[in-house]
Amino acid sequence: MNLKYAIVGTGAIGGYYGGRLANSGKDVHFLFNTEYEHVAAHGLQVDSVNGDFVINPINAYKSTVDMPKCDVVLVGLKSTQNHLLPQLLPPLLKSNTIIILVQNGLGLEQKLASELPDQPIAGAAAFICSSRIGKGHIRHADYGAITIGEYQKCAPDVLAQIKADFDEAQIPCTITQNLNEMRWRKLVWNIPYNGLTVALNTSTDRLMAFAATRQLVTDLMNEVVDAAAVCGAPFEREFVDKMLAMTDRMTPYSPSMKLDFDNHRPMEIEAIYTNPVKTALAAGYHMRKTEMLEQELRFIQSNILNL
Amino acid sequence: MNLKYAIVGTGAIGGYYGGRLANSGKDVHFLFNTEYEHVAAHGLQVDSVNGDFVINPINAYKSTVDMPKCDVVLVGLKSTQNHLLPQLLPPLLKSNTIIILVQNGLGLEQKLASELPDQPIAGAAAFICSSRIGKGHIRHADYGAITIGEYQKCAPDVLAQIKADFDEAQIPCTITQNLNEMRWRKLVWNIPYNGLTVALNTSTDRLMAFAATRQLVTDLMNEVVDAAAVCGAPFEREFVDKMLAMTDRMTPYSPSMKLDFDNHRPMEIEAIYTNPVKTALAAGYHMRKTEMLEQELRFIQSNILNL
Repeated sequence: MNLKYAIVGTGAIGGYYGGRLANSGKDVHFLFNTEYEHVAAHGLQVDSVNGDFVINPINAYKSTVDMPKCDVVLVGLKSTQNHLLPQLLPPLLKSNTIIILVQNGLGLEQKLASELPDQPIAGAAAFICSSRIGKGHIRHADYGAITIGEYQKCAPDVLAQIKADFDEAQIPCTITQNLNEMRWRKLVWNIPYNGLTVALNTSTDRLMAFAATRQLVTDLMNEVVDAAAVCGAPFEREFVDKMLAMTDRMTPYSPSMKLDFDNHRPMEIEAIYTNPVKTALAAGYHMRKTEMLEQELRFIQSNILNL
Repeated sequence: MNLKYAIVGTGAIGGYYGGRLANSGKDVHFLFNTEYEHVAAHGLQVDSVNGDFVINPINAYKSTVDMPKCDVVLVGLKSTQNHLLPQLLPPLLKSNTIIILVQNGLGLEQKLASELPDQPIAGAAAFICSSRIGKGHIRHADYGAITIGEYQKCAPDVLAQIKADFDEAQIPCTITQNLNEMRWRKLVWNIPYNGLTVALNTSTDRLMAFAATRQLVTDLMNEVVDAAAVCGAPFEREFVDKMLAMTDRMTPYSPSMKLDFDNHRPMEIEAIYTNPVKTALAAGYHMRKTEMLEQELRFIQSNILNL
């Protein structure tokens, strides 16, 4: 089965995974916004710890209206842009096209399913350090695995083929049976580090090196584990220690929200903070420190966007 | 009964109250540090909403060793300096001298009592907007009342005389029978506004004007009311609304911790955050958002002091 892929949002994440797939010979079609002219002329360049490559020529488009219908749509947009999906996606969709949201946070698949109730939808979590360092230019600094989980109506054989394609493209890929648990596990890292690097204008290594903030990171992680448990996704408490140890080993890194903050872009507060806090509260657990971080981030965001 | 007063720490608070007392003819002796030469030459100037005045000549000293023994010692130091009290105070003390800590936070009288177990000790809360705007120069912008409560061994007739002296000096003064409750009530204002104006680098009016931070202020106030109740100082929940309404009416104001932060001075984290959180936790209540603010402030402070 030869799958045709669309990449909607060719940034640090979509560009890396789409680039890897194209580089291994898959049929990949990329949506660009302001970078279209540059990429059409010079291709997409990926500088990776595992070896650099350039996709040139590239199947680049300025609008999904010009793109072919695909079997798989990887959405690499920031979740702050998801209100655009009902307009962007339809030209790409056959009845069995799988839409995979390669995004952070909670409640995104649920919202899209309310807009496209009959479409196959999956979510994915990328465990990767990558960033956009220029026009059509992505730097992949570390990690790179992806985990994909069905939200609704995904054909098992297509998911299996996607995994095979990813693995062949040097992207370690896991198909999970529990998307909800995967989302909550990802939040164990995202909730403390994304928000605190913004609120305290710092980096992951400095948060870890100071006792009070290391404890605050740990407290926030424990809130996520407690929230996950009441939201039908219990997992082992030791995952907190695993994430702390992993971060201790990481090169100092600016999480995506810190990059958004530094570049005066909207932050993914809704998906990473508001939705988890609301979901846990509805299930009977109050994520107090997470909620406080959300409140601080909303204030900080209002100041940035007023500048 | 003519009381002799010592002012230890002649800053925004000690300078204002000591100045008022001296201005009404009381016998007041002021301890200065770096400002001594200036004040000895030019006096202490208070610009007050209720009328400006200058104390010149002034009973100014560079060391408590040179000061007379007094009946009342008003301590207006920052609580971050309280480790100096066991050295500073003894030259001023007779066996019945009352030491009044005009400071913010919890646990300060307890600590001093452990160092001076036989000395009369009281605590006071100042409801005042005042700041030091230059050498020997204080600006009193609003309010000014003081509430005093016994911690240990205070003679009732001396407390009554102190109240009479303050009232005569145009300082509205209340003697409370419940120092613990007074301390917790003061924290209802201090915990949200001191810390959040620093953590979010903003002012009280901007915290109040934005929905998420107004809610966070309210959440923190409610934690203080809940903590007070388990710590033997229950009071009415409506006090929160009263403090919110009072702050809405205030001229935009930088709390003392924000002024300390802006001037790269140590912040009173221990007295205003650490001690209340610890005290409440020992009594069975976890002030989670207050604790998070403490954690953030410790990180911020470590960055300032490393500069």
